[in-house]
Amino acid sequence: MRKVAVVGIGHTKFGKWENRTAVELFAEAARQALEDAGAEGKEVEALFVGSALPDFGEGQAMIQTQCRAELGLGLIPSTRFEGACASSTVAIRDACMWVASGQYDLVLAGGTERVIPMGTPLATRTFAMALNAYQEVPAGLTFPGVFALVARLYSRVYGIPLERLREQMAHVAIQNHRHGARNPLAQFYGKYENLRVEEVLSSRMVCDPLTLLDCCPFSDGAAAVVLCAEEKARRYTDTPVYILGTGQGTGGPMGLFEEELVKPPSRVFSARMAFRKAGLEPKDIQVLELHDCFTPAEIVALEAMGFFPEGKAGEAVEEGQTEIGGKIPTNMSGGLIGKGHPIGATGASQVCMIVQQMRGEAPKGNQVDPVPEFGMVDTMGGAYGTLCHLILGRARG
Amino acid sequence: MRKVAVVGIGHTKFGKWENRTAVELFAEAARQALEDAGAEGKEVEALFVGSALPDFGEGQAMIQTQCRAELGLGLIPSTRFEGACASSTVAIRDACMWVASGQYDLVLAGGTERVIPMGTPLATRTFAMALNAYQEVPAGLTFPGVFALVARLYSRVYGIPLERLREQMAHVAIQNHRHGARNPLAQFYGKYENLRVEEVLSSRMVCDPLTLLDCCPFSDGAAAVVLCAEEKARRYTDTPVYILGTGQGTGGPMGLFEEELVKPPSRVFSARMAFRKAGLEPKDIQVLELHDCFTPAEIVALEAMGFFPEGKAGEAVEEGQTEIGGKIPTNMSGGLIGKGHPIGATGASQVCMIVQQMRGEAPKGNQVDPVPEFGMVDTMGGAYGTLCHLILGRARG
Repeated sequence: MRKVAVVGIGHTKFGKWENRTAVELFAEAARQALEDAGAEGKEVEALFVGSALPDFGEGQAMIQTQCRAELGLGLIPSTRFEGACASSTVAIRDACMWVASGQYDLVLAGGTERVIPMGTPLATRTFAMALNAYQEVPAGLTFPGVFALVARLYSRVYGIPLERLREQMAHVAIQNHRHGARNPLAQFYGKYENLRVEEVLSSRMVCDPLTLLDCCPFSDGAAAVVLCAEEKARRYTDTPVYILGTGQGTGGPMGLFEEELVKPPSRVFSARMAFRKAGLEPKDIQVLELHDCFTPAEIVALEAMGFFPEGKAGEAVEEGQTEIGGKIPTNMSGGLIGKGHPIGATGASQVCMIVQQMRGEAPKGNQVDPVPEFGMVDTMGGAYGTLCHLILGRARG
Repeated sequence: MRKVAVVGIGHTKFGKWENRTAVELFAEAARQALEDAGAEGKEVEALFVGSALPDFGEGQAMIQTQCRAELGLGLIPSTRFEGACASSTVAIRDACMWVASGQYDLVLAGGTERVIPMGTPLATRTFAMALNAYQEVPAGLTFPGVFALVARLYSRVYGIPLERLREQMAHVAIQNHRHGARNPLAQFYGKYENLRVEEVLSSRMVCDPLTLLDCCPFSDGAAAVVLCAEEKARRYTDTPVYILGTGQGTGGPMGLFEEELVKPPSRVFSARMAFRKAGLEPKDIQVLELHDCFTPAEIVALEAMGFFPEGKAGEAVEEGQTEIGGKIPTNMSGGLIGKGHPIGATGASQVCMIVQQMRGEAPKGNQVDPVPEFGMVDTMGGAYGTLCHLILGRARG
């Protein structure tokens, strides 16, 4: 199998897009990615699009076909992947296989979502459809509810008083919002550079113990990458970033997990697959974008992926171990909390942000120094329903 | 790249399922497929699920994760594909690549849909979301509308008076309903064995010139296959059926096609890709399942795939060229019209029906004799939005 390189990235600003459809947003990101690669549309052999609920958001099913037409590509295979918030990570992982196997040399992969026009209450109910429709949803569960439960369970399992855990969670929000404030592509660019713990704790309660600042926002946006076979990558860029290993796992419904909700087996399974394929370990990773939909989700992810021992990640965040100079700089883009979370676009955005880091092109204050050799993407769809991991490297490995 | 074999098939009865969810239907088909292969759930390395609108049908997004849980499989990668009516053909094509490339040896792939509880008027509007949301849907277009337009355009382009074309279309309905009437898995099993032209023409007008009997029904159902690497196939079955070539193409929106709506470039592109990969031509194919959502769709498909010259397929159907003993026995299962059309399950069902033919196990009256060496599946999602083709053979090729 050939290695696959990211040779172009594209990313709309995340936030509120009143007058652009999800298809138009995707086309903007995809055109940027092609321009970044110096590739033309006619070179693209297949299109892989992640989008969670474009049918609910805008009444547009089969969004991949509209994206192809908007971009004026050939009659090429165009496939849509739906894995809730992990939709475009799964799309990129799948695209990698088609290139690695030799079927295609150059493909476009990414994601898009437009949900803000729906409004937060309806969007919250709509996206809850990624939970179990016959057990969890009728019980009133939504995603803020899932991670409020996770926080309470984490507190109990690891014997950390909830008020103490809330402070640790607040540090996740503070860091990710600080990074997001410096990222021009972020929804909260320039907004929350210097949050204090008390501000997070006293912001509006969304779902006890999660306050507004513990939660990622709803966002509109798109991101895309051009993937290329290793032997052709340098035709397009001097700074290819190789995908060294990928993983994917499946979990849920929540009732089957019980205490494992604080160390989800699907994430452990997927991350281990990616590390094994890449021949790397957590200690090798120098920059990480992970799925911080809510602050406790970041703490759980850091532990399940093996970056910190069980029950210790919150403390590590508080100590600055997830900042530049710490053990594993995490969500330097702002993550979902600071950069925004256009569901189907999030995984592709994470890949773009890691590639930016590996090119040394991250925004001032956010760039890891020295430029990282290895980076990792962690995306979760549903309540640990779909986990997908990608490990990227500057060398072919 | 390795060849990939179908070593197990599973198929629920198509029709109205009041008390079974789409997940339960998928699990039934998947368990049948595993049992048919003599494989256990723990051997399954990945799950590929096609489903078009489970979020609208039952409020269940991420249906792939629920299918995994219902089947009690491991934490394996589970991916959902949405390509409207072609969802599960695309899922199977993608699954083939993962096996062919050597990543997995044994996987489950299929599709499921439950839509009848929605009722026909709402389902018709809902599935129209596979058209363009900003141009076609606001104009009032639905799928019966698309194929009524296609029939009228076909009549004009090839100079066949509409009343004459309607007779040819009626023969599509008569044949497919006859086959469906003999197929115990079909929604109209035992129902329309001996339709007459006048009955089709005088059945209730749905969208002029399409009458009720020109249209496939809405259906609930699921179908699944076990795919296996060629070198392990005979561990599971004495009658492996190999996937020799696949193709996929993308078209639409309709405004970009104009007269090409009667010979859709996306179907030509996809079918040629499949023939090229298989090293075969239309004359080699001995049994065909194609996407007869409405009777004119079958006529257009037969021509675009190269089985009959332009403007001649209707006449060929009338002459019995698509029956046993004719040039290309087509939709011997009943097709979408006779067997039913549970959107996301249709492609997987077509594969099961071809495998059944190649095992010599088709229902009495429908079995092609001698048992065919080569068969083909054609599935269309949207208005020629996604086309996907699979060519199957009893020998490894």
